[in-house]
Amino acid sequence: MKIGFIGVGVMGKSMVKNLLKNGYEVEIYARQPEKVVDVVSEGAILISSIAALSKRNDIIITMVGFPRDVRSVYFDEDKILNNAKAGTIVIDMTTSSPSLAREVYLEAQYHGIQSLDCPVTGGSIGAKEGTLTIFGGGDQNAYEQVLPILKAMGKTVVYVGGPGLGQHAKLANQIGVAGAIAAVSEMIAYSKANGLDPKALVEVWNTGSAASTQLKVSAPRALSGDMTPGFFIKHFIKDMNLAIDETENKGIDLKMLHTVRDMYVKLAQEGFGDLGTQALVKYYEESEKDNGPKNN
Amino acid sequence: MKIGFIGVGVMGKSMVKNLLKNGYEVEIYARQPEKVVDVVSEGAILISSIAALSKRNDIIITMVGFPRDVRSVYFDEDKILNNAKAGTIVIDMTTSSPSLAREVYLEAQYHGIQSLDCPVTGGSIGAKEGTLTIFGGGDQNAYEQVLPILKAMGKTVVYVGGPGLGQHAKLANQIGVAGAIAAVSEMIAYSKANGLDPKALVEVWNTGSAASTQLKVSAPRALSGDMTPGFFIKHFIKDMNLAIDETENKGIDLKMLHTVRDMYVKLAQEGFGDLGTQALVKYYEESEKDNGPKNN
Repeated sequence: MKIGFIGVGVMGKSMVKNLLKNGYEVEIYARQPEKVVDVVSEGAILISSIAALSKRNDIIITMVGFPRDVRSVYFDEDKILNNAKAGTIVIDMTTSSPSLAREVYLEAQYHGIQSLDCPVTGGSIGAKEGTLTIFGGGDQNAYEQVLPILKAMGKTVVYVGGPGLGQHAKLANQIGVAGAIAAVSEMIAYSKANGLDPKALVEVWNTGSAASTQLKVSAPRALSGDMTPGFFIKHFIKDMNLAIDETENKGIDLKMLHTVRDMYVKLAQEGFGDLGTQALVKYYEESEKDNGPKNN
Repeated sequence: MKIGFIGVGVMGKSMVKNLLKNGYEVEIYARQPEKVVDVVSEGAILISSIAALSKRNDIIITMVGFPRDVRSVYFDEDKILNNAKAGTIVIDMTTSSPSLAREVYLEAQYHGIQSLDCPVTGGSIGAKEGTLTIFGGGDQNAYEQVLPILKAMGKTVVYVGGPGLGQHAKLANQIGVAGAIAAVSEMIAYSKANGLDPKALVEVWNTGSAASTQLKVSAPRALSGDMTPGFFIKHFIKDMNLAIDETENKGIDLKMLHTVRDMYVKLAQEGFGDLGTQALVKYYEESEKDNGPKNN
């Protein structure tokens, strides 16, 4: 099975490399070919258009940025669904809208193409090491066919249910991240305001009921002032907005999620959207400034 | 060193048993003596008044409910500080107010008594197994003297700093718990509203960036409908209020913490204060009802 891969960014690059390492033939498309020379040197074949790539492969994987990019790469005249041959399986691994995943599924079906939504979690490290968690949505039959391919990129690969449910499982995961990272940020803000040294306490807190991956991974970064994006604030806002969209008219009000989304939106408005999610600690530094010097 | 222990509830009982197992002589006071027969049968000596217990011991440990109980047990005429001999070390292990811990410290000093604030985390299981995490605040010299006693009850025992800082470290921990448990509750609420089976996903989510102790421990309880208190909602509200009190006039606004506190207060007002903290999931079922049937 020949694989075409669209969206060779930080995550996509590592995923393509893991496919190559597992013996798959991978063709890639890149808007900026100069940025993918390393992947080509490892054996990926660079194709000049999405239309050509779509015609030439049995499996097409997309890992793009926002739902609008997903919409474009699947639906535009010169893109995937109008060019891939019947029998192709397309896999969107972008974190995107569950409703859009169902739209793609139905439109693909019309073209005789099978569509899966398989978003991932585990970040750039998980992508690099091939230890991503992958949530599979769509028809189980198509999922089973591509399972070995997914396993080349991920360690925990699970079938969640019909079209869109892969996305729902990922968005639920992001809700968990929102709460966990707000927890870490407020632990740090509280500590600083009250004369505690959070650096000395992170490991201790991580032995108890407040333990989390975010406390383990994000807290040390935030405390050392390293705001390098493992995961961009602007992308996280997208994910939280997608989750909020999917709760509308469903009778639930995710108050924590709304609260955290609003804090990140404020940071993005202040120009911090390209920082990593650990930069939520800046929200409290900002509010400290707004309220004048602290009165300890 | 003879140890007096006041507050032989769920946590206190296990802590006393671990002291006995480690060879310490422990005298206890209990308002309801019929409830502590098991501890007495394991070797604890039951004393009829706090005044008598305070006079007879070198170390006095308190593990009571609310700050008002701490205030009473230390300051009332017939309680600890007016009866303990000079040279006694008192250790409050209740999660209580950092400001009150400093008050107790100063008043104790006046009586020639050393005071430590050493709240714990790890819950009833940690207390039972002697694996509690203990945050030590107060004079380091006094802390070092009682360290073997603390280690009989806890696994991770750390000196955090001067009087009140043990409480601050614990309250920061509770802020972490608030975010983590809200995360879990909203993951569950989102999943149910969108046709996902959260039971099948908890372990998967726990492999990635949303992983937490709360997801591991509280989510399965909440999903099986087991609302038995490992930790009471009413006590958690106390902790969150203490943390919020300690941020006032300090120029920080812990929005997530306020949001979660308000949700729990609503549940308590509806009569759920005696359930375990995992019952936060009920908040979303309630809001679902308020808004009529879900429109999926």
